[in-house]
Amino acid sequence: MHKIITISRQFGSGGREIGRRLADTLTCAYYDKELLEAVANETGFDPDYINSFDETISQSYPYIFNRSFASYQQSPSEKIQLAYLKIIKDIAQKGNAVIIGRCAEYILKESKPFKVFIYASDINYRIERCYTKVPEDRVYKTETQMLKEIVAIDKERAKYYEYYSSKKWSDMTNYNLCIDTASVGIENAVKIIKSAVDLL
Amino acid sequence: MHKIITISRQFGSGGREIGRRLADTLTCAYYDKELLEAVANETGFDPDYINSFDETISQSYPYIFNRSFASYQQSPSEKIQLAYLKIIKDIAQKGNAVIIGRCAEYILKESKPFKVFIYASDINYRIERCYTKVPEDRVYKTETQMLKEIVAIDKERAKYYEYYSSKKWSDMTNYNLCIDTASVGIENAVKIIKSAVDLL
Repeated sequence: MHKIITISRQFGSGGREIGRRLADTLTCAYYDKELLEAVANETGFDPDYINSFDETISQSYPYIFNRSFASYQQSPSEKIQLAYLKIIKDIAQKGNAVIIGRCAEYILKESKPFKVFIYASDINYRIERCYTKVPEDRVYKTETQMLKEIVAIDKERAKYYEYYSSKKWSDMTNYNLCIDTASVGIENAVKIIKSAVDLL
Repeated sequence: MHKIITISRQFGSGGREIGRRLADTLTCAYYDKELLEAVANETGFDPDYINSFDETISQSYPYIFNRSFASYQQSPSEKIQLAYLKIIKDIAQKGNAVIIGRCAEYILKESKPFKVFIYASDINYRIERCYTKVPEDRVYKTETQMLKEIVAIDKERAKYYEYYSSKKWSDMTNYNLCIDTASVGIENAVKIIKSAVDLL
């Protein structure tokens, strides 16, 4: 059985960077925005168009992860989500991998991935991290605007997760390990996850 | 600054055993039921009487962790909770320690303890663990009774935590590290916490 580590994350908490560093440390595949390209190849849609649906839900379609669509025409967003489903399942068959978001822990539940949630208990840590990642935002976005953006993106992610899994995104019991980057930092978070993965 | 590790835990998840093993591994003090004796010495109450208030709340008293009681007569439960407050603060001054429950992470928030939450994503793991800890319960309690007991104790702990801290007990962002014993096991949970503590 391959080692698959899924990382769900609050926006601005450092989950993506942790995933990338973890994949480097474990010398395994890493999937985040890389999934967009794969979905583009699968569906024929433009990556930017796919990105507009990324980890958000369209109320017009039902629980596609559990249903068959043979009987009716699929909407573009349905096609995109089904492509995610197929691609993430294919990834898990190929070898060890770190996958960021996209309900991967739910999609792969049968193969028991190691499910990590990354959060930051201090909202200022997340705001500062967003500014550091996109320095020009210090000029264009006030702290209040940044905070609103963080809250809005988390809300979308929570809706997306809950829509497909029928579970609460922020409920720790949906994950195997939850780490607060505001207290342990990015580098230590990678080491803690690695120590956990090595033990399994 | 001493290293203080606080462990909050779902009933039946193995938090107490993890705390004890962690204290052995770190060669530091361990406080769980030991706190009862200290509170008995401080208040003059019988340990069994104190135990009846353990991690539960009496609605008759206010936010004693934040208020002064100089102006009125304290109830026994108020005296007990204030003794917990004093004793836990004293412990943090003395040296490295692992403290189980009793809102220790909130009481010690100024000294920034390392805050761990132990849970088990699989309820059957918790039921089985309860039977293993008290083997005679296999005869006297059905699984349904055990489940009800687990739910009731967690509810009390959540109320107690929320009463004193005004925060949600099950909210991961109140902790620095949350670990699912149903997937990683007790021994690995100890190792993961130790690896995190060593990094700090």
